Amino acid sequence: MELEFLGTGAGSPARYRNVTSIALKLLDERNAVWLFDVGEGTQQQILRTTIRPRKVEKIFITHLHGDHIFGLPGFLSSRSFQGGKQPLTIYGPKGIRDYVQTSLRVSDSRLTYPIKYVEVSDNGQVFEDDTFRVECRKLDHRIASFGYRVIEKNHTGELLVAKLQAAGVQPGPEYGLIKAGKAVTLANGQVLPSGDFIGPAQKGRIVTILGDTRRTANSYTLAANADVLVHESTFGQPDGRMAYNYYHSTSAQAAEVAKKAHVKQLLLTHISARYVGKAAHQLQTEARQIFPNTRVMKDFDQVEVPLAKHQPITK
Amino acid sequence: MELEFLGTGAGSPARYRNVTSIALKLLDERNAVWLFDVGEGTQQQILRTTIRPRKVEKIFITHLHGDHIFGLPGFLSSRSFQGGKQPLTIYGPKGIRDYVQTSLRVSDSRLTYPIKYVEVSDNGQVFEDDTFRVECRKLDHRIASFGYRVIEKNHTGELLVAKLQAAGVQPGPEYGLIKAGKAVTLANGQVLPSGDFIGPAQKGRIVTILGDTRRTANSYTLAANADVLVHESTFGQPDGRMAYNYYHSTSAQAAEVAKKAHVKQLLLTHISARYVGKAAHQLQTEARQIFPNTRVMKDFDQVEVPLAKHQPITK
Ligand SMILES: [Zn+2]
Ligand SMILES: [Zn+2]
Repeated sequence: MELEFLGTGAGSPARYRNVTSIALKLLDERNAVWLFDVGEGTQQQILRTTIRPRKVEKIFITHLHGDHIFGLPGFLSSRSFQGGKQPLTIYGPKGIRDYVQTSLRVSDSRLTYPIKYVEVSDNGQVFEDDTFRVECRKLDHRIASFGYRVIEKNHTGELLVAKLQAAGVQPGPEYGLIKAGKAVTLANGQVLPSGDFIGPAQKGRIVTILGDTRRTANSYTLAANADVLVHESTFGQPDGRMAYNYYHSTSAQAAEVAKKAHVKQLLLTHISARYVGKAAHQLQTEARQIFPNTRVMKDFDQVEVPLAKHQPITK
Repeated sequence: MELEFLGTGAGSPARYRNVTSIALKLLDERNAVWLFDVGEGTQQQILRTTIRPRKVEKIFITHLHGDHIFGLPGFLSSRSFQGGKQPLTIYGPKGIRDYVQTSLRVSDSRLTYPIKYVEVSDNGQVFEDDTFRVECRKLDHRIASFGYRVIEKNHTGELLVAKLQAAGVQPGPEYGLIKAGKAVTLANGQVLPSGDFIGPAQKGRIVTILGDTRRTANSYTLAANADVLVHESTFGQPDGRMAYNYYHSTSAQAAEVAKKAHVKQLLLTHISARYVGKAAHQLQTEARQIFPNTRVMKDFDQVEVPLAKHQPITK
């Protein structure tokens, strides 16, 4: 599980930062990539990475401002052009379907795969399967803006193959029974309880990615105990009033969320073009005074989200 | 008058060519820039040039395929963000207004300037003022695709100031009369005919920019005697059947148009990503066998369109 920042700017593309898009790479976990927002030029940024558009399984849109969606029709078309066949689901505020469908219809784009739309309008769960769950909550922006909390389910422990073989169980259907939590009875009548032959379970990870927002209570709920919080940081502390007026956050406000929500790591993005070089570094300095494990992201930065190794799960 | 190629690729952005956009820089002529097509990422390309979005006065869309329009909403938003106040006119096939308006409405983009839409559906003149005239004609593509012929009106000659002063006329209202073609009567009764004090007129230039197309008769009409013809060249000669099947042209077909239409210069663009390096050069070689003054364009190439100096205008 890795995050790759495809665009870390705010509002308009700038020389050193493209507009917003974030890839959550779940290649080991589900051989898939999820995108969060698709600003204009995202497909061009992807050309400079190892991401393959056909692997993009889900797209989560935080809000409908142009710097978060204007790359969507082009990305969808190119995914088709490159032979993508797998269905793709787009989650986003009401209006996203109208925008995408109008763009594809007017441009006579015929995709090689179906798109499923999930328009979100309230707090709640938007997706769940065997390995992941995604919840969203409304933030405080000029238009409806959402944050997404991606919750990986706990990993069951590994099968202890050496220990099974020592107990006289060779590879075969018994291994499946043990993995499924069932006891196995040997030919000699001995009963092997499943729990003795499975390693410790591992806690799933939590990645929270917020859309543009002012400071708001739902950010804390979404970020609670997350392994990684991705938060906008459009402005610096001296520009706090401007942040408020434009429905954005300062890096210090993002750090307060990270601190109170007890996240492990804070990644700042959506940086206004006014902060270049040292000024962008200053955003990081201001945030670190409140939450030390903070980094300001640049385009193409990659961040590994490690499993907490051998951490026992407390029920 | 200069052309600057902002994107010279076909279909999808590729590593070395962005999707289509061409700037016709009319800075001396009308302190304005006209864009022909606005593929995704055009505003990012513009960031790497000296073009200022607020100077873009008109946008001509050849056809509605995504690689020619998906950069339009983002460009329009950034032009507003950067303080553009002047009205902007968009010419294009029916549907362009729906696409732009839906994109701006869904994204809650409020522009600082008005947009005028001119939806074209037939052959004819789409614009005329004192200095320029633009005509369009329908080409042969899978969807409605147009070519534009930009006709600069003839330049009246320069005022011959030294000759006027030698004749005893000092700067003043008489200079305006002479320029306006009126005779001037001196205090001594001598009559100075306007024509004696104005240099030779200069022929206006013609720039023809075609959208995606198969070979078709209207291309010749649009390109007749043009100073510059910009023609698509999606494929090479060995892929002629593919060009036909996909409603595109080979570089050799473009060269035939240039030759029969007696243009001065042929610029090839909309190059498929399959032609890289030597293969792209081969497109040029094939075209030059038919029309020697041909160049395959690369992103950011600039081409001056010179006035034919002192060329007498034959009426
Ligand atoms: Zn934004
Ligand atoms: Zn095209």
